[in-house]
Amino acid sequence: MQKYYELSRKEWFSQPRIVAGVMTGTSLDGIDTAIARFYNRDNRHSLEVLGTCFEPYSSILRDKISAIIEKKRPISDTAELQMELAFAYSTAIQNMTAKANIPLELIDAVGIHGQTVWHSPPKKNKTGVTLQLANGSALSQMLGITVVSDFRTADVAAGGQGAPLVPIFDAEFFRSSNLSVGLLNIGGISNITFLPPHSSDDPIKAFDTGPGNMLIDAASLQFFGKKFDENGALAKEGTLIPGLLQRCLEHPFILKQPPKSTGREDFGRKFLEQMLGSIRLPATPGEDIIRTMTEFTAESIARNIMRFGSEIQIIIASGGGVNNQTLMQCLALRLGNISLTTSEKYSGISSDFKEAVCFAYLAYRTIGGLPGNIPSVTGASKSCILGSISFPLPFIH
Amino acid sequence: MQKYYELSRKEWFSQPRIVAGVMTGTSLDGIDTAIARFYNRDNRHSLEVLGTCFEPYSSILRDKISAIIEKKRPISDTAELQMELAFAYSTAIQNMTAKANIPLELIDAVGIHGQTVWHSPPKKNKTGVTLQLANGSALSQMLGITVVSDFRTADVAAGGQGAPLVPIFDAEFFRSSNLSVGLLNIGGISNITFLPPHSSDDPIKAFDTGPGNMLIDAASLQFFGKKFDENGALAKEGTLIPGLLQRCLEHPFILKQPPKSTGREDFGRKFLEQMLGSIRLPATPGEDIIRTMTEFTAESIARNIMRFGSEIQIIIASGGGVNNQTLMQCLALRLGNISLTTSEKYSGISSDFKEAVCFAYLAYRTIGGLPGNIPSVTGASKSCILGSISFPLPFIH
Repeated sequence: MQKYYELSRKEWFSQPRIVAGVMTGTSLDGIDTAIARFYNRDNRHSLEVLGTCFEPYSSILRDKISAIIEKKRPISDTAELQMELAFAYSTAIQNMTAKANIPLELIDAVGIHGQTVWHSPPKKNKTGVTLQLANGSALSQMLGITVVSDFRTADVAAGGQGAPLVPIFDAEFFRSSNLSVGLLNIGGISNITFLPPHSSDDPIKAFDTGPGNMLIDAASLQFFGKKFDENGALAKEGTLIPGLLQRCLEHPFILKQPPKSTGREDFGRKFLEQMLGSIRLPATPGEDIIRTMTEFTAESIARNIMRFGSEIQIIIASGGGVNNQTLMQCLALRLGNISLTTSEKYSGISSDFKEAVCFAYLAYRTIGGLPGNIPSVTGASKSCILGSISFPLPFIH
Repeated sequence: MQKYYELSRKEWFSQPRIVAGVMTGTSLDGIDTAIARFYNRDNRHSLEVLGTCFEPYSSILRDKISAIIEKKRPISDTAELQMELAFAYSTAIQNMTAKANIPLELIDAVGIHGQTVWHSPPKKNKTGVTLQLANGSALSQMLGITVVSDFRTADVAAGGQGAPLVPIFDAEFFRSSNLSVGLLNIGGISNITFLPPHSSDDPIKAFDTGPGNMLIDAASLQFFGKKFDENGALAKEGTLIPGLLQRCLEHPFILKQPPKSTGREDFGRKFLEQMLGSIRLPATPGEDIIRTMTEFTAESIARNIMRFGSEIQIIIASGGGVNNQTLMQCLALRLGNISLTTSEKYSGISSDFKEAVCFAYLAYRTIGGLPGNIPSVTGASKSCILGSISFPLPFIH
């Protein structure tokens, strides 16, 4: 039986679509927005990025998110936050499209990741649970644009980790005809996608490798009151503390068999406190701690590549961590013959906004009725259409 | 510019659709499900109810919901609850459709209200906030059926109360050509819709009147350990305490100008405690308290009808409160010349399941791109397509 939505799918893909994407990562720094035009030709997609923008969270909003994640807050706080986030996203999108000179009326859809406030992937005998806040229905009303939200839950409901979701974007836009490509995103958490060349039958693999900027940020805040280590300058001044690095590397997640995903639960402030408490550190300079967290982050990424993707020939990095030169140098040193470049240099898609573009693309797929997860990557039992669609104003007034 | 979804809308309404609805009210008793076939003819809709079922919440699940509503719980509890509710709804729908002998493959969509855990309508200088838990995307994956969820947020985002949403259902299926009809739903909270005859230009009005079964249930639990006053038997044995009734009637919500909506925040266990604490009640039988709460509930409904809908000729009641004979008698006495009947007697749509059928209908409208709110009723600044749509398996496998 042909379902009514198969007809709308054909229509959706019959012409280029302009879709905005909104990413807010675990680092709680702010809102990345991007807008792109997507083209469909014989079921192969291409894209053109039309604009990007970063809008920092206000300190009030950041504190509210932190309070909900870390403390016992009444449900009213959660209810308010999902609406406040919709407002913040609405403003961010309007600022971005104004900057890019694109009228809102021309935008076909918006895909929002939402702010992850809880992520607990499935375990033995326990179903997974994930929660990204920001109300898609409210945002749709605020903007007058169709919104797709809540991308991770469908995969989790199908037994998957709900992450990573970038691989289908990577496979569509970064896969090479002859090279084995590794796509590394260094956000709060780091994740990697292994793309065998088009000629290969190997499956696409992708997973979180462990911390991204999260521990470096936490240490920068604790020792210098800075939100992050700009350009890796603090780490550059520090000296590695081998015992502390060793202790960190004992975390079982690092060499856990993929598929796997992680979050602030594993590598948040608590982890840093535990690590610092676990060894004697008399009068250690803060730079040394930051250096060690930087080396740990690089080492955890490199170990995952060496263990699970030894065939990789090139690593294309993206995410905020790319701006941390010390981290990138530490990583390059550990990768040996594998060359390390950035998304920006390789494809012109800005490192900082790749995930925002990805969520625009996932929305483009969802509205067209295409799956967004890769079961070999997330561990889900099936391909799923990801997210929920909220329509704006009624079609006939 | 014609949008792609206008085409799918035409297709959606081109044939009868089978849609299930799920309602879980503030009384936390369990899950009402209903399934109906909807027909469209010249943009007028008709329906045929195919089955209904009630599935009580397990005491574990009920306790989890209460804990989240009443106490400070970490966000993980909220994240888990939204998934657990999706499971519970999935089971309830499967049981209902098995009983009605309808294969899941024949169901076009499911509309779920979700469990309200917070509802705070807009106030002066303060945006409204509402949160109904139960993840639509997860439920869609579990059932393999398109799901519409989160119906109230769009209206709240448009400045409305987010409630009541039943009036568009009432207007479509209960409006009379020559009578002024009042539709009363007695759930945890009571709400009423005033439907002028088709010939009239008067706007449709609807609003919450105050408590429904909520206070009666709370008193039954406190004094007799019973979840509710079955058939109103306890109230029947009791005697009205005039001072207590008087005190209750002072609540400013009762005669507040519509549009207005309320919830457990106003008339929950706390209100009962406050009322009981406010007057001297030496050795008062529990039956008297329940009697007084029953009279207060009837009186608050009647005062709203007399004050704001004096043209009404017939009241059609639905919701669990219809089974409370004492409440219905108290109400009939107070309504004078206005006749009181039930949804079941008037239309064949079971009182207990009218709201579940309503959410099936709202989903039918949302997928077809029709608005579901009535701005004159909710106070919203515009008509909105309500909810978010989650699609099941990809269209092409």
